[in-house]
Amino acid sequence: MGLLSDFGLEDVAVQFARVPMFPIFDLMHYTLSIMYLKHEAGVVDLSRRSPITCWVCSMLCCFGGGMLAAAMLGEPILDPFESNINVFLASVIWYMVFYFPKDLYYRLCSLLPVKLFVVASKEVTRVRKIAAGVAHAHHVYKRGYVVMVAVGIAKGAGSGLLANLEQLLRGVWKPNTNELLNMSFPTKATLLGAVLFTVEAAGWLPLSEEFLILIVTIFLVTTKVTLTAMHSHASPFDPIETPLCGFLFGAAPPDSDGHGHGQSSSGPAAPAQQGKAEPTEPALRKRKSKKAE
Amino acid sequence: MGLLSDFGLEDVAVQFARVPMFPIFDLMHYTLSIMYLKHEAGVVDLSRRSPITCWVCSMLCCFGGGMLAAAMLGEPILDPFESNINVFLASVIWYMVFYFPKDLYYRLCSLLPVKLFVVASKEVTRVRKIAAGVAHAHHVYKRGYVVMVAVGIAKGAGSGLLANLEQLLRGVWKPNTNELLNMSFPTKATLLGAVLFTVEAAGWLPLSEEFLILIVTIFLVTTKVTLTAMHSHASPFDPIETPLCGFLFGAAPPDSDGHGHGQSSSGPAAPAQQGKAEPTEPALRKRKSKKAE
Amino acid sequence: MGLLSDFGLEDVAVQFARVPMFPIFDLMHYTLSIMYLKHEAGVVDLSRRSPITCWVCSMLCCFGGGMLAAAMLGEPILDPFESNINVFLASVIWYMVFYFPKDLYYRLCSLLPVKLFVVASKEVTRVRKIAAGVAHAHHVYKRGYVVMVAVGIAKGAGSGLLANLEQLLRGVWKPNTNELLNMSFPTKATLLGAVLFTVEAAGWLPLSEEFLILIVTIFLVTTKVTLTAMHSHASPFDPIETPLCGFLFGAAPPDSDGHGHGQSSSGPAAPAQQGKAEPTEPALRKRKSKKAE
Repeated sequence: MGLLSDFGLEDVAVQFARVPMFPIFDLMHYTLSIMYLKHEAGVVDLSRRSPITCWVCSMLCCFGGGMLAAAMLGEPILDPFESNINVFLASVIWYMVFYFPKDLYYRLCSLLPVKLFVVASKEVTRVRKIAAGVAHAHHVYKRGYVVMVAVGIAKGAGSGLLANLEQLLRGVWKPNTNELLNMSFPTKATLLGAVLFTVEAAGWLPLSEEFLILIVTIFLVTTKVTLTAMHSHASPFDPIETPLCGFLFGAAPPDSDGHGHGQSSSGPAAPAQQGKAEPTEPALRKRKSKKAE
Repeated sequence: MGLLSDFGLEDVAVQFARVPMFPIFDLMHYTLSIMYLKHEAGVVDLSRRSPITCWVCSMLCCFGGGMLAAAMLGEPILDPFESNINVFLASVIWYMVFYFPKDLYYRLCSLLPVKLFVVASKEVTRVRKIAAGVAHAHHVYKRGYVVMVAVGIAKGAGSGLLANLEQLLRGVWKPNTNELLNMSFPTKATLLGAVLFTVEAAGWLPLSEEFLILIVTIFLVTTKVTLTAMHSHASPFDPIETPLCGFLFGAAPPDSDGHGHGQSSSGPAAPAQQGKAEPTEPALRKRKSKKAE
Repeated sequence: MGLLSDFGLEDVAVQFARVPMFPIFDLMHYTLSIMYLKHEAGVVDLSRRSPITCWVCSMLCCFGGGMLAAAMLGEPILDPFESNINVFLASVIWYMVFYFPKDLYYRLCSLLPVKLFVVASKEVTRVRKIAAGVAHAHHVYKRGYVVMVAVGIAKGAGSGLLANLEQLLRGVWKPNTNELLNMSFPTKATLLGAVLFTVEAAGWLPLSEEFLILIVTIFLVTTKVTLTAMHSHASPFDPIETPLCGFLFGAAPPDSDGHGHGQSSSGPAAPAQQGKAEPTEPALRKRKSKKAE
């Protein structure tokens, strides 16, 4: 800490933590969330047939994390809608993404330089939300570490976790995949971030919360912007994840085709029809991971 | 207001707002809700095979709105079951609708004159619930207009919105339709009513809440009774809705078959497989709208 | 009561009610819950592909009852995760059930004598949970008898009721069956127990809560151990249930094939396509009832 202060990094972190999310960063978050919704199959059609459903799904994409976190903590799930100005801005963005003449807003934001800025802004808001979620849960449960991690994840990656519900609202049902089963990179990063903020809140980390926000933000923004620029959906965690999973759980992570080799150690009670209900479809995962960004 | 008082309308409104819903109107609400449930495919069979599931589904149809509103505001979702007498009456109605000798109760209530009275009574309770929902949300969030509208809708049309959950409890799953995607007339009227009561609660309307209850009730009761008498499921909002949707969202509302013409403006990112997941089936909508009445 | 005291039964009951559930009984509950999860089709495979999903599903099996009860009472649904030591123990059991070398832990607990002990312990914790659930609801709603029964059932048999959600998390969707529609013996016993504890809490039973815990525990443990030892999934309630259902609801309970005879009394409005969506599959029920134990 002393060293950090000498380099002035601590000051930078404190300054950065004071940058308000409203309105620019929030607007970018709404824009990207609703753009990903529009990207889904059938949604453009839905926006003509049932604008209300389209609006409700868009709000779920924008505020789903806060709703899930509120439900987890027994608070009103409509809490995120208390702020009229935020709902109004999200609604304006919704209208612009879906109904702007000649689709100009969507096209503009799809241009790579603009998109990189939007993506970076969204990750900035995500880290703030993780930190806020952990802090909020810490306020309610002083020592409930699992609750703190869970609420942090919910706030940071909630709309991805609620994707099945959001799809159901617009009449689409894909039960054989979800964000938990096929975690995208942002969700994994959110999990890691939530653990870090929980460790910090528990007082086991020699770093201030502001500093942690800064470094997690730098990591997430650079990684996500790089991945977006390269049109890649690979996860930078794979090199660590694969051997770690192999060591801890005796198996390769999702991408491998080694369905069979775990069978032998599963005992006599293991059912015969394994691996039928959950196909590992790379194409499915790719579309999914795009969604949850 | 002065004018209204001169005609004595304000007095009528105050008197009308004092008419208690318990027990007559509540009983009619339970009767119609459970009759619509019995009308669903497979439910009569279910009532023989699993009376408990049938009872739970019936309670969800009767009290679903209150449960959804409670969940939205972070209150116990079992709140509507606190009142033993109401649960008891709803259970008696459930028993009479499903198990009365020779099905006499159901047949009696299906006679047109009786049915019109039951339908009218249910709409009377609906308007009260919308008003109560908005007032309750207003009490919690002084300026949360979106929350107020949402809770008003939940209380007034909640069991329709929970139809997918209610179906799931009895082993039926129809993901490609829901009350949000294919709004029935009562749900649309509930939305309009919730907006009006919210505007009134915000102090932007030169009308008292009592007066608003009176006129919304008159509108809903007359429209719904007329529709029921004519066996019609048309929505009186269509003449306004069609041009308005066309102006705001560049498309005809749900009923039109114009799936294609919105395509051109959807930009290069629009997916190719649009309009596949959500078929517009008029037959489906008809059955659905019956359900949500 | 005087008689009971003379025999010293009341003392035994008080002593028994003081036996702490933590850690032995809780551990046995976690073990059996996670063993039943591992027994499900595809879960061993899932434990290799997505350990996180497997862990979340396991926690839902262990703590689902508490979560459901908390949701019903408007409390934080993550409440059961406040206790770090319980979550830690459940996680250790999860790891041992799924990843122990040579599957030794699972095999050990599957041996009949060990399994009977585990089954008995789980039923002991179940009765405590029912009593705690009813008492908690009684604390919130003094006279809300339906709420008290519902929360008691949720706490005692909640993870069975949440089975559809738990399956969805791991990408499996079986909408045409659930624990409400095809109640297993433990769920029925939980319902009966919840009613008894509610009657006691209302002061209508000349028995102390401790005594009721003792006799319900004795009934559940002996019945469940006998059924497990005999590899039977029959319900001891059938001899009472069948005639009672026949008398009250004019039909035989679920197992009968008498789909047709109820038709005649269902009136003109009864739909034609009854009994199509919900097949009565004995095989399905058997697997299901295993799950919910």
